[in-house]
Amino acid sequence: MGKSIVLLSGGMDSLVTAAIAKEECEELYFLHVNYGQRTEVRELRSFRKIKDIFKPKDVLIADISYLTQIGGSSLTDENIEIKDFQNANEIPNTYVPFRNTHMIAIAVSWAEIIGADKIYIGAVEEDSSGYPDCREKYFKALQKAVNEGTKKETLIELVTPIIHLRKAEIIKLGATFGAPFDLSWSCYRNNDIACGKCDSCVLRVNAFKEAGLKDPIPYEVEQNW
Amino acid sequence: MGKSIVLLSGGMDSLVTAAIAKEECEELYFLHVNYGQRTEVRELRSFRKIKDIFKPKDVLIADISYLTQIGGSSLTDENIEIKDFQNANEIPNTYVPFRNTHMIAIAVSWAEIIGADKIYIGAVEEDSSGYPDCREKYFKALQKAVNEGTKKETLIELVTPIIHLRKAEIIKLGATFGAPFDLSWSCYRNNDIACGKCDSCVLRVNAFKEAGLKDPIPYEVEQNW
Repeated sequence: MGKSIVLLSGGMDSLVTAAIAKEECEELYFLHVNYGQRTEVRELRSFRKIKDIFKPKDVLIADISYLTQIGGSSLTDENIEIKDFQNANEIPNTYVPFRNTHMIAIAVSWAEIIGADKIYIGAVEEDSSGYPDCREKYFKALQKAVNEGTKKETLIELVTPIIHLRKAEIIKLGATFGAPFDLSWSCYRNNDIACGKCDSCVLRVNAFKEAGLKDPIPYEVEQNW
Repeated sequence: MGKSIVLLSGGMDSLVTAAIAKEECEELYFLHVNYGQRTEVRELRSFRKIKDIFKPKDVLIADISYLTQIGGSSLTDENIEIKDFQNANEIPNTYVPFRNTHMIAIAVSWAEIIGADKIYIGAVEEDSSGYPDCREKYFKALQKAVNEGTKKETLIELVTPIIHLRKAEIIKLGATFGAPFDLSWSCYRNNDIACGKCDSCVLRVNAFKEAGLKDPIPYEVEQNW
């Protein structure tokens, strides 16, 4: 049991991961990271609303907007267009290189100071956009770096409970926990009404349909649930 | 050859590492990270002066002052006293958990965008304060996470050229390159005249003495060079 940190972007994967952590853990700590993405304000709002429901012991909101100085991703560089979903094999331009490592490094530093022994991360491997830092192989390698890069007596486990689930399974699982999907936000483009066309929206909409559930958030394009 | 990123704090280890990189690499990129440490302003000044001499192709100055929100280290929390050097076996309270991972994650993201294939890091393992994220075992583990967490075609090597050198050897090596030690800054406490008593100062002063050289920076306590 003990203290556990949850990485909570405010998207549906991290929401369900938080719900799982709430079942499994004694004391929750929520970490939210602003990285200068287009929907930063909207995601932060989702985080705050979800936090108000889960009532973690403490929260940390960290800013890594230096990622906009690096750019090179359509999420962090306004000059690069976010494309509509394409069922291609290549990694889309929404890829933000090594993003998860930045967030997990913050969680590890925080964990070592407060004495947390678990970090929950809502990464999804197969049923996603193919980002390399969402694969189990990456998390296993990073786990070793965490072990070697912290004090001898520090034991911090990276927990990825939904990494091999399909998106529809994640939604069904979340529904069994009563996860407040209406508070979550996935759209890469918009801050008010989800576009329904970007990678993140299409993966979400299709998953809700496959799960046989209606997504409670508003979409620009009317959906047939 | 190609593009290489150097992590340059402005301390003597990263200065010598930059000098080595300048010998070995074609095109240099310098990364400096402010993390809310007490001597942030002084280190940044050192970085800028060293940068003006080495003339890298580009620089990135990133802010990760969220580490002050986490605190728990005397470098990032003003309420924790920086102690004078003690020849103890335990890790001193200047330890900032997992700090190197934050910095290297920034370098990796930048490297993948600009197409750099080497990241130079001036970590020192034995002759240092015993920080776990300065050990070769840590860098080897992190290297695997970098390989797994970036695109298949991306190859980024973490290079730690001085990791097994003693501090005196680092100074001698830097001297052969004409490294401008007068521009570097190591003191954990002060921004103008080095205290001469903190871990970082004592390691530096002793190393200059062992190398038979005079440290060109000013100290509060007069030194017998």
